[in-house]
Parts: sequence; C-alpha cells; structure tokens
Amino acid sequence: MFDRNHLDGIAAIVGSKGIVSETGEIRAYEIGARYDEGKAAFVVRPATTAQVSDVVAYLVSNGIPFVPQGGNTGLVGGSTPDSSGAQVVLSLDRLRSPIIVDEENRTVEVGSGVRLSTLNDELSAYGMFFPVDLGADPTIGGMVATNTGGARFLRYGGMRRQVLGVEVVLADPQGTVLDLATGLRKDNSRLDLKQFFIGTGGAFGIVTKAVLELQRAPRQRATALIVPSNGDAILPLLATLEETCGEYLSAFEGISRNALERTFSHIGHLKNPFARGEIPPYAILLELTRSWVPRSGELDLSTFLEGVLSDLFDRDEPLVNDALVARSEDLWLIRHSLTEGLKASGHVIAFDLSLRRSDLHRFRTQIIAILDAEFPDLAVCDFGHVGDGGIHFNLVYPRRPEASYVDRVRKTVLDVVVHEYGGSFSGEHALGRSNQAIYDHYTPDLLKRLSVSVKDAITEVPIGNFLFGQKA
Amino acid sequence: MFDRNHLDGIAAIVGSKGIVSETGEIRAYEIGARYDEGKAAFVVRPATTAQVSDVVAYLVSNGIPFVPQGGNTGLVGGSTPDSSGAQVVLSLDRLRSPIIVDEENRTVEVGSGVRLSTLNDELSAYGMFFPVDLGADPTIGGMVATNTGGARFLRYGGMRRQVLGVEVVLADPQGTVLDLATGLRKDNSRLDLKQFFIGTGGAFGIVTKAVLELQRAPRQRATALIVPSNGDAILPLLATLEETCGEYLSAFEGISRNALERTFSHIGHLKNPFARGEIPPYAILLELTRSWVPRSGELDLSTFLEGVLSDLFDRDEPLVNDALVARSEDLWLIRHSLTEGLKASGHVIAFDLSLRRSDLHRFRTQIIAILDAEFPDLAVCDFGHVGDGGIHFNLVYPRRPEASYVDRVRKTVLDVVVHEYGGSFSGEHALGRSNQAIYDHYTPDLLKRLSVSVKDAITEVPIGNFLFGQKA
Repeated sequence: MFDRNHLDGIAAIVGSKGIVSETGEIRAYEIGARYDEGKAAFVVRPATTAQVSDVVAYLVSNGIPFVPQGGNTGLVGGSTPDSSGAQVVLSLDRLRSPIIVDEENRTVEVGSGVRLSTLNDELSAYGMFFPVDLGADPTIGGMVATNTGGARFLRYGGMRRQVLGVEVVLADPQGTVLDLATGLRKDNSRLDLKQFFIGTGGAFGIVTKAVLELQRAPRQRATALIVPSNGDAILPLLATLEETCGEYLSAFEGISRNALERTFSHIGHLKNPFARGEIPPYAILLELTRSWVPRSGELDLSTFLEGVLSDLFDRDEPLVNDALVARSEDLWLIRHSLTEGLKASGHVIAFDLSLRRSDLHRFRTQIIAILDAEFPDLAVCDFGHVGDGGIHFNLVYPRRPEASYVDRVRKTVLDVVVHEYGGSFSGEHALGRSNQAIYDHYTPDLLKRLSVSVKDAITEVPIGNFLFGQKA
Repeated sequence: MFDRNHLDGIAAIVGSKGIVSETGEIRAYEIGARYDEGKAAFVVRPATTAQVSDVVAYLVSNGIPFVPQGGNTGLVGGSTPDSSGAQVVLSLDRLRSPIIVDEENRTVEVGSGVRLSTLNDELSAYGMFFPVDLGADPTIGGMVATNTGGARFLRYGGMRRQVLGVEVVLADPQGTVLDLATGLRKDNSRLDLKQFFIGTGGAFGIVTKAVLELQRAPRQRATALIVPSNGDAILPLLATLEETCGEYLSAFEGISRNALERTFSHIGHLKNPFARGEIPPYAILLELTRSWVPRSGELDLSTFLEGVLSDLFDRDEPLVNDALVARSEDLWLIRHSLTEGLKASGHVIAFDLSLRRSDLHRFRTQIIAILDAEFPDLAVCDFGHVGDGGIHFNLVYPRRPEASYVDRVRKTVLDVVVHEYGGSFSGEHALGRSNQAIYDHYTPDLLKRLSVSVKDAITEVPIGNFLFGQKA
C-alpha cells in the first residue's frame, strides 16, 4: 500500500489544489481513450515548472514510480497508470501558460498543458494557426511527447518539424530543468538535445514548455470526396494532385467502405453524402487550402478544384469514378468520427501503421486477403493518411476477443508490415504500455541497446509506461 | 611518425585505388574552404559501406585518429586533418551509388558521396528536386553531417526535415553498420536514432547512405531585388510577403551594401543591376516559385510578382524604395558570389549566426554601432537568410589580423549574440575545429555534460575534429 506520508510531502509542494485523490474525481486520470485504464496512487497537478521540478525531485528521491500525463487522449496506454495502484500520475494539465506569440518570428511559446484548441483560438487573432491537426484535443506537451502527425502531415509535417524548442524537467534527484526553449529556426551549435523528448512518450523527461513554429492560417479551403476508379488508381491520383495542386494540397485521406458504413450506422447525426447513400469501396477526402488571398485575376480555390477534378475524369482511363464537392466541415466531421464509429460497432483491434506510400496499396490488398482467409470474423475498417504513408489499420471484432486471438492477429499483420515492407508499428501514436511487447519483439537488439544507453545517459530513473529496453 | 604498416593494412581492405598518399594528390583533401588546412597521414577512400566498416574497424582497433570527409566544402574545419600528420582522412567521395528514386514515395536513396548537383541532375527526369540549395556543391553525406540550411530554408527547411533515414558506420572495433535507411515519413516505434547523425559533424558515426524526401521541381520562378525603405521596414516586408505570397515565397535573402560593393569590385563578370550602379544600404533578394503549372485563368507568376511589388509601393508609407525584376540566374549568381567576393577583398572573420528573425534588425543595428566604435578598421559585410533568422555576419579586415584581434572581435560579437539574444554561433555550418573553443566557452555545462554522455553511449572513440565536451 502506498505510504500516505508521501501524499503530504507532495501536497507541501503543490498545495491541496494540486492533488487529486478522491475516488470520483480521479477516474478521468485513470481511464485512457482506448481500453486502457488503471489505478493511480494519486494525481499531482503542479502549476509551474518550478513545482514540476520539485515534484519530480521528490518522486525520484523517494523511488516513487510516476506517469506523466497531458490531455490523456493518447491511444497506446502511455499516460494512464497501471493496475498496481503504486504509480503517481503527474498531470501537466495546469501548465496552461504562457501563450506568448512572437508575430515577427512566427512562433509561440506555450505551456505544455495548453490544449490544441485553446492555442488555435489564441492564434486566430494573428491570422496564424498551428498546423498539426487531429480529431482529439490533446495538450501541446502530449503532442510533443507523442510526435503527433495528424491529417495535414502531407503539407505541414508532424510535431518534430514544428518544435523549435522545449523546456524539460529531467528525472533525477534534483529535478533538473533543461532549458532548450529557444525560438531559433536553425541551431547547429550543439547536439540537438530536444529531439530526445519528441516522440518518446515522456520516458526521457517531462516537457513543461515548447516553442513552436506557426503557419499562416488558411484563408480559402476547398474539399471533396473522390472515389478512385480502382485500387491501382490511388497512387497515380496522389501523384497527379501533387503535380497539379502543389502546396495547395493539404490532405489526402483514404477511407474504406467498412469504416464508412459502420460510422454512418452508429453515429446518427452524420450525413451520408454519396448519391443514393451508396458507399464506394474506398474514398479519398481531398482538401486544398490557400493561406493567401487570390489576387485580382486569380482563380478562386473552389473553381481551381473544379478544374482539377474535371481533368481527373477527362482521360482515356479516368482516375476517379465519382467526386463530391461538399462543405469542408461536413466532410471532416465524417473523417474525425471514424474512430468513434468503429468503437461503437464492436471491439477494435487497432494498428497505427506507417509504410512507404508506394507500398500502401500493395500491402492493403495482400493483408486483407490474408485476414479474410485466416480471421473471417474480423472486419477490416481501415482509414488513414495516404499522403504520408500512415494507415490506421483498424479491425473490428463483433465482441471482446480472447487475448490469444488478438495476439495472433497482431502477429499476422505486423510480421508482414515489419518484415516484408520495413514498415512501422507506430506511425504517430508513439509508445506506451499497449505496444511494449510489440517493441520488444520487433526492434532489433542493436537499436534497443543503443536506445537504452542513450536514455540512461539522460535520465536516472524510468518514467512512465514504456521501457526502451534493457542494457546489454 | 606514422607507422607505414597501417598503410598496408588499410590498402588490403580498399585496394591501392582506395589510398591517396602522394604529395600532390593529397593536397585537395588537406586544404579546406576557409583558411583551414592540415597534414594527413594518408587518405583512405572506401568504395562501399562494407569497406567503410572494415576501415573504421581497423582504425579504431589500432587507435588511429581519423577525420571523415565528404566534399570538403565545409566552413568550420570539420573535414580537414589537423597539422599533426597523424590523422587519417576517411573520404566518402567514392560512395557515389546508389541513386534510387522511389517516384510514388517521392524519395531517393542515395550514397553519401553523391554530389548535390549530381543528385539534382538525376532527379530532373522525374520532375523533382532536392530543395536544400546553396552556392557550393557538397556531398549528401556532408550535408547530413552539417545539417545544411541553404537559401530556401524558409520554404523547405534544412537537412533535418528532408532526411527520412540514414545508414551509418559506428566508431567501434567492429565498425558496426547501423541501418536506419528507411523511407518512412513517420515512425514513432522507437527512439529516432538518426537524429544524432544530423548536424554533429560526423562525431557520432560515419554516414554512408541517406534516404531523402524529395519535392516537385519548380515550374515557374520569379525573382526580384528589392530595396527596403529603411531598416525598420525589413520585417514588415517579410510579414507582408508571407501573407500575400504564401508558399510561393521561397527566398528572402538580405545583402548589405558593403557585401555587394566588394563583390562587384572583385568579381569582374557580375552585372551590377542597380540604376546607375548605385548600391543601396541593404537589398533583399526575393524569389517566388511555383511547382505547379497555373490553370487556365490563373496569373503567371511574373505577373503575380508585379502585382505584389506594386502593392508594396502603393501605401501611405511604402515598404520599399526600389524593386528590380531581373533574370533569376543573374540575381542568384550575385548572391552565391558573395563569399568569394569578400574573400578576395581582404581577410574574412566569419560568423554563421542564427537569431529569432524578430531580433535580426535590432541586433544588426546594435552590433554595427559597437564594431564601428571598437574596431574601426573592420568592414561589416553581412548577408543572410532573413526569412529564417540566419545571418552570415562576415567582417572583412584589410590584411591578415593578429589572432588576439580576431579573438576580441569574436568575443564582442558572440557575447551579444548568445547572452543578449539567445542566438546561435552556428546556424548552419555545424561544428569543427574552427568553433571548438567557441563551443567550449558558450555552451552551458549541463548541455555539454549531457551531450558527451549521449555521444559516449553511441560511439566508443572520438571521430574527427570536434569534441562535444568532457565527461563531468
């Protein structure tokens, strides 16, 4: 049982407002977004970097295990406590300041507890936005720790591209504050230490602040759902759009029929935009955006898109069967409802894969055939970021499956992804309790050995739910 | 004196073609691009990754110091041997294959000895290009090791953004080959080890291959030299252009009068494009590019630029005094001749600074006043990448200065850069013998300590000309 004296020791640092230990209140910190939940000793919510430092120093000095947590919207069990009741949840959700925009530098300095939506609300007054975009509303610190990709990666890249600097508290008995919160776009004057804290799930240190590059907000947007004439047309379609639309192209998202059907069935308020409601085998959500206003004589972006779409039909072998231009909000609502729609339709066995985009269609065809033969009760309900090679290869089982069934499915899919395609089992959700065993199995020993050596050079104790490996 | 037996040991691995030891031939490997030269024991030129591995294993096992070298175009003494005659130069210039384009993935797998110009020649057949652009013609491996920025960073970013994967030989007695040469745009399945080898001057390992993201080549280009109405107009000008030109904006390069004057004086074939040859106090090279062909009804990029420029004049307080639209090649030739022009006009004391771009003008004004007062014989001949905060703050002295004079100048400039502005002493040239003392002086102990711990976790012996610090 957890020593109650430690609760007092921590409360002396953060005050009573900084502690959550009541049964009702604490659940939100214990339950994750996808089937992961545990039991926390208690939750500590420091309000400043100095408090984070003091809390970490206390926890490390007393050998208390802890899990950093941002918005707790992650999908791989990175931010929830395990079932032991021994782990303290270190929530960063009170680090909601600063939000300091440097307009001329086109950057913002932002506390790690700030939500993505809050940041973008603040930025709209400047005509800017933060371009890493996704369905959930995570905190900035969580986005750094998971190296979030999102739906517009194709144009803007993921977190690693936007992060110019971070402030981090290291897990040592001093709670050392590492200030790398620079607003420089370029700095080759030393080892770029901030890279360690991006995409490592908090295991190298606790991000308390970030400096992010910003982009000018889109002023025009044109969106369409298009239906490739067949699977082989998907990649030529992407290449054609990159060639004809250049930087206007901001999203090229693929959605399978299974994913669409289940989402429309289970989420009542969505409108099915297809003619007669007939859902095609595969659809692409295509978005063009322009951050600058067209000059007199220039085409409006909608007119531009119409011309582009018409050219896709106007070929000897058309690349598309159908194209629906619709309100951007409506189409994105469908896209961002898929995760919820699938979860409502059964038990989701989720894969967050990344491949060379040149391999996507071949992989999909191959693996669907294998799964259909070996696991006939599974519905393949994939969707994903075709433009960057990301694929949320989600499978739905009618009920909660046996663990051994899930293991067999995982092995079947990942053996192909990793061994045949050199793909990744974690494209953008990073690392946590849910994929520890997968990491242990698929990561070459040399990489595990180097990673743990580096981690040990930075942090003195393990943090959170993921171990990079054991020292050789 | 160097043990000649080692020459035979190495020749047994690479053959006689792989060794350079003749006095005449060896000089090109011993003399760097900026005042740095030394004396090599000999040069070894492996032709394959396997040979690199065997050579490194031999060198490490026998305790022989070595310096990796790409195109030897670097500016900080990173690739030339010291004066001891004991260092072996490990040239990667024979690793000129593969060059394998994956068109659908929009990537290329490329040997580290391939020159930038060779790569772009190969890519032109695909309508693609590699967007990190600069005056010199380095090898890809050298560009990875120095994290090259270049003149179009504003739009495309530097090397770190383009590198999807690397193959590296580690400096251990086995010459371990670390294969991270993936073509994935996203991979959060492990610590992103490739980051260590970008911008660290070869000190963490020897890059033998890279996988790079490519961009579609520009199809239209429009270029102008514009003269801001005064120093305070530079940043509003940049903000206005970002707002009105969006992703068309591919370069925003500032050039001082001193740099222009000396370059026109010393490089005979350049055309002075200014009216009556009168050089303004500061000029901006502005470039717009478009990778897609305008659709029917859309403005040509030159017409677009004319409209943008005309709006800059058409204000109560115009942002510009003058604007010259000229052939892109002519203007870039001037830009890329500056380094040579200054070198021909005296002894250059060079600074490769990076600041928040919001600080650039204030810094420049402040430091010029200080230098004018304290060092009246120095001419400030700066130029740089205003759009990304980079500034080649180059000072020209009429003759070769005393070392103590150079030291005083360096301290005067860098104290302001680092302590007052939080800027960087190495924006894009990375680290080598020339800036070791600067690193030692200006880098906080904590960062040095962490960096050397990480380095020691990756590599067993020091490589090349830069030490990240001593273990605490």
